[in-house]
Amino acid sequence: MTLLLSSLIGAVAGSQTQAPAPPAQAVLPLMPLPAQMKPGTGEFIINNGFGIVLQGFQEPRLERAKRRFLNTLSRQTGIPLWREASLNKPQFFVQTKGPSAPVQRLEEDESYHLQITPDEVHLEAANPLGVLHGLQTFLQLVRITPHGFTVPAVTIDDQPRFPWRGLMLDVGRHFMPLDVVYRTLDGLEAVKLNVFHWHLSEDQGFRVESKRFPLLQEKGSDGLYYTQEEIRSVIEYARDRGIRVVPEFDMPGHASAWFVGYPDLASGTGPYHIERDWGIFNPAMDPTRESTYKFLDTFIGEMTVLFPDAYFHIGGDECNGKEWDANPRIQQFMKAHAIKDNAALQAYFTGRIQKIVAGHKKIMEGWDEVLQPGTPKDVVIQSWRGSEFVGQAVRGGNRALLSAGYYIDLNQSAAEHYAADPEGNEPTTVGEESKGILGGEATMWSEYVTPENIDSRIWPRTAAIAERLWSPRKITQDVPSMYARLAIISQKLDDYGLEHNSSYPAMLSRMTGEPDPLPLRVFGDVMQPPRQYARGELRHYDSFTPLNRMVDSIPPESDTARQFLDIVNRIVSGKPAQEDWEQAQEWLVLWRDNNAQLQPLLSRSELTQELIPMSTNLHHVSQIGLDAIGYLREHHNAPAEWRTRQLAFLKTSEQPQAVLLNMIAPAVEKLVQATTPATTPASGS
Amino acid sequence: MTLLLSSLIGAVAGSQTQAPAPPAQAVLPLMPLPAQMKPGTGEFIINNGFGIVLQGFQEPRLERAKRRFLNTLSRQTGIPLWREASLNKPQFFVQTKGPSAPVQRLEEDESYHLQITPDEVHLEAANPLGVLHGLQTFLQLVRITPHGFTVPAVTIDDQPRFPWRGLMLDVGRHFMPLDVVYRTLDGLEAVKLNVFHWHLSEDQGFRVESKRFPLLQEKGSDGLYYTQEEIRSVIEYARDRGIRVVPEFDMPGHASAWFVGYPDLASGTGPYHIERDWGIFNPAMDPTRESTYKFLDTFIGEMTVLFPDAYFHIGGDECNGKEWDANPRIQQFMKAHAIKDNAALQAYFTGRIQKIVAGHKKIMEGWDEVLQPGTPKDVVIQSWRGSEFVGQAVRGGNRALLSAGYYIDLNQSAAEHYAADPEGNEPTTVGEESKGILGGEATMWSEYVTPENIDSRIWPRTAAIAERLWSPRKITQDVPSMYARLAIISQKLDDYGLEHNSSYPAMLSRMTGEPDPLPLRVFGDVMQPPRQYARGELRHYDSFTPLNRMVDSIPPESDTARQFLDIVNRIVSGKPAQEDWEQAQEWLVLWRDNNAQLQPLLSRSELTQELIPMSTNLHHVSQIGLDAIGYLREHHNAPAEWRTRQLAFLKTSEQPQAVLLNMIAPAVEKLVQATTPATTPASGS
Repeated sequence: MTLLLSSLIGAVAGSQTQAPAPPAQAVLPLMPLPAQMKPGTGEFIINNGFGIVLQGFQEPRLERAKRRFLNTLSRQTGIPLWREASLNKPQFFVQTKGPSAPVQRLEEDESYHLQITPDEVHLEAANPLGVLHGLQTFLQLVRITPHGFTVPAVTIDDQPRFPWRGLMLDVGRHFMPLDVVYRTLDGLEAVKLNVFHWHLSEDQGFRVESKRFPLLQEKGSDGLYYTQEEIRSVIEYARDRGIRVVPEFDMPGHASAWFVGYPDLASGTGPYHIERDWGIFNPAMDPTRESTYKFLDTFIGEMTVLFPDAYFHIGGDECNGKEWDANPRIQQFMKAHAIKDNAALQAYFTGRIQKIVAGHKKIMEGWDEVLQPGTPKDVVIQSWRGSEFVGQAVRGGNRALLSAGYYIDLNQSAAEHYAADPEGNEPTTVGEESKGILGGEATMWSEYVTPENIDSRIWPRTAAIAERLWSPRKITQDVPSMYARLAIISQKLDDYGLEHNSSYPAMLSRMTGEPDPLPLRVFGDVMQPPRQYARGELRHYDSFTPLNRMVDSIPPESDTARQFLDIVNRIVSGKPAQEDWEQAQEWLVLWRDNNAQLQPLLSRSELTQELIPMSTNLHHVSQIGLDAIGYLREHHNAPAEWRTRQLAFLKTSEQPQAVLLNMIAPAVEKLVQATTPATTPASGS
Repeated sequence: MTLLLSSLIGAVAGSQTQAPAPPAQAVLPLMPLPAQMKPGTGEFIINNGFGIVLQGFQEPRLERAKRRFLNTLSRQTGIPLWREASLNKPQFFVQTKGPSAPVQRLEEDESYHLQITPDEVHLEAANPLGVLHGLQTFLQLVRITPHGFTVPAVTIDDQPRFPWRGLMLDVGRHFMPLDVVYRTLDGLEAVKLNVFHWHLSEDQGFRVESKRFPLLQEKGSDGLYYTQEEIRSVIEYARDRGIRVVPEFDMPGHASAWFVGYPDLASGTGPYHIERDWGIFNPAMDPTRESTYKFLDTFIGEMTVLFPDAYFHIGGDECNGKEWDANPRIQQFMKAHAIKDNAALQAYFTGRIQKIVAGHKKIMEGWDEVLQPGTPKDVVIQSWRGSEFVGQAVRGGNRALLSAGYYIDLNQSAAEHYAADPEGNEPTTVGEESKGILGGEATMWSEYVTPENIDSRIWPRTAAIAERLWSPRKITQDVPSMYARLAIISQKLDDYGLEHNSSYPAMLSRMTGEPDPLPLRVFGDVMQPPRQYARGELRHYDSFTPLNRMVDSIPPESDTARQFLDIVNRIVSGKPAQEDWEQAQEWLVLWRDNNAQLQPLLSRSELTQELIPMSTNLHHVSQIGLDAIGYLREHHNAPAEWRTRQLAFLKTSEQPQAVLLNMIAPAVEKLVQATTPATTPASGS
């Protein structure tokens, strides 16, 4: 073993020791934080004598919830609990006062009361929804101690801040098989999200079996769609977890896949094909023909029976109107009906669709664009452009939810998502108006995810969004606490079968053919995917592009880089601890020396060859960081010429290479900025 | 970060660099090795233009095999291959000459011919069974290179040495849910095993739904059993993978669970209960009452319809006869029929059962004990006592298979299993006789496994057994080659969803509450579970005991300890390389210093507190090793008193503690033994 490798891995351990400190005792590792909690004394021990009993209102869903709770508890502890129901004296009493609605409704009571003492646990709720939430709270509290697996004594009174807390999953661009859907629902339950918004049609695929219009799936899906039986099974699975399923069929744009089987729906002349590229495309439904509305009435009729939820999402985003411009018949229609532009034409379309949806006894939901003068007040607006549009919608009398700020496909930090609030940073609504703000939804658009890596985009950051939507705003201002709890919850989510932690090392292994390629891990740990929409501008991607490279494997947010930046911030603020200096130095040595270990590995695989310059770059950046620390630590002036040259190099290093961002470069730039420039050439002393 | 931690993890990396070298170029990383292979020139590249076509005989099973092959290839490469069938020009041609039997038979042709060139792949086989094997061979050859994912050009002609190559799974003692069964079948297919022997009844549980005798599962299973529909689905799943399903219902002993619902079957007075302990129990079927045979005729009739395989296993092992001794009616029967002892009574019972089984057109199989004078020649004997009993059976005209030596629950090394041969080390059969040796089966008894850790007991060692049963004996004598290929195959099996590699770190994490408790991993990497039947003697275990401690988490064989022992052997043989000295020293320093890191972690969890003395012990053992290396390296004499004291300490350290074996102690003992004793007190120079 070389010394280099020793120091390399040494610092991997260093990153371990720098893991966020556990939250203070008063703050339990819960996410979302409950509305109210009062610590008790002692702890409740879980062993194979554990017994739980359901009291009050009974239903099969509660029995299944109990069974699922025991299974999860068994996975968390390794203690077989299957026999408890018949043999053990109950210590955990669940009291359900009454039923919830046959189809889960928007404003149901989700509150629960959970009291844990060393001897007994009492969970009480008005209906099964509160019970489901309370059981998840209990599971989050389980920990290993010198006395075995325990939960601390505590009394919790909890209910959500917003009634609509969701995740949108785009299965149009990359189809997601049922096992992804199921485990995603398991994760939503764990963090008390209650809406699964299923984005089911796109230019790249139509994903639902229609019995009335079978060419939708037969010609528009490559065979990758859900049967109606599968849809019903997902809805049942979601209901078991206190989650509503809101379907979205995007129209009039984002609809190419419909037109492969039914070209008459479209405004152009075709022929149409399943779109293989990413972006915004021209095909759009023809809003001027009655046959379009006849088709959609029948289709929506079929789908509103299949999906029992009261809300029905019709998309409405990003219709570029080019097919409308190019179609003389449509232009003539607009003239005849005094429709002044494409926005107005879409408003006309939306109005007709809204009537169809309402005719099927559903409430229509759409993206920002559907809000136009005259939009009926019961239409729910999902804002993807900003919280100010939420305010605008509710001031106008509609209800709205926020997705801007919750775009988990864009590789932003958990802190950024956590900062986005449905009421805005400066609430612009008051009283009755603010009741129109229903909540929000994380959105998982799927250009750059596969079943293999999608969990790493959804989790754990969605848990931070879940907290924003559930917990009182005033008790969730502490970002370090959020990160500390997020790390714990992320680990707990492994027990729900989520793969966000396991996919990364598995993909590194595949890239190299090595079981555990540590130097590649060290490198990847300080890289991030490009943010916002930059990725598509850096390289061509389409439906067939393998997503099996470094950018696809690493988490969207580098915990290591964030922790390093925290240290750097303490250093440049002039208040570092002694261990900050040491830790910064050790990490920089690690990253500098990693390159020599990594290069031979990189050259062996087509998937990693493109990382060769990036690894060399990390080596140089780290050396600059070490030099800067040298100047700072010894209070020497850095030569002005050195500063200028390094800052220029660092600026370049902050640009994406191999579709990756070096997340150490900005922190090192801060270090160099903090050095005092020498006006004369450095003396060398 | 402390230096200690640095060195600690440094040596973890050391264990990486000491991973077994890849096999020589001539030996491809295949397991089992093919009967014949001839390297070609160049390599075949897999990209998303990959196309495969089935030619010749067609059936839905082959279509499913193709789909499954593409899914596995996609997982191996991260390249989406779902569209290939419709869009790509085929490069991989599969030629199937004809069908295989409607129900897979014992002696079907499993051979295949696989030719890989840079441009094309040709797979030919007489029937779908050979195709299935050839596809798996191809998948094992996939690797990442500078040109992307490729397989090397090669021509392979392959067929198995033995026709019966199996794994027995005991689902009686610990029930294994369907997902375990399915992924186990996936693993069997990957290594060309073709029999899934399903041990379905035990004292601790009856695991099949009987419609004729529903109290079997209702009272005998705790609700943990397979419905007939599930059984049929497993059989279909196995058939798709070229695997026969042979059911076993153990009788007359190991049958307590039957008697809970049907006490009249038993020889005692009851009452009977599902057994919760491990061991051999008294309850046994009553061989003297006609009602027993009437029941079993009906039951076997039902089960032989459910399980289409030609063979039916009736167990027959370990009946202690105590209920027979205690029952005056049975004693009287024996006297009346001149049955001289319990073995003869069991032979009478077996004879009756054989006629029932034959009456249902099945061939009976049983453990060693069913072979008695007069046993019909078509009965297949499964030997758990030794290969000499296989020889004895076939010389007597029966057919037989070997399980002695393949008991994968007993924590032996892959090399030990690899050394066991169905023909024995010195074949004792010739000509026609030796044709009676059908092959062998690994046996997974389930006292100490759960769905969580069972994969780590089955895999990867079962792949070595699969090679022993498939590959020509003469080309599989090289144990280092076996271990080198085993490591590669083990990693590949991850792509089949097997959890043998992932369960260990997950269980360490649960034990400690830490995401990645490296010092515990360093410790665990040199520990092994007690071997053979020692575990049950060290501590009380029963059905309810949580299997969530260190002994349950670690693999049965320590790769690190094996590699360390290899180094030690080179040192004591007097032919070490310079790097052997260094590696041994670095590892010993790691293990010595690990204790200081590990102790605080161990004390925090009830599950690890018992490891505190064991970790201290590893510290001392490692220091002794370092001292011994000091003497050896500098050609000093070790003080006699020192040697005596250390050897005594090491002997103690080789005893199990906390139900664990310290696998470093025996190697360090070798080092100390190799030091030259000083006859006078050491001078200190």
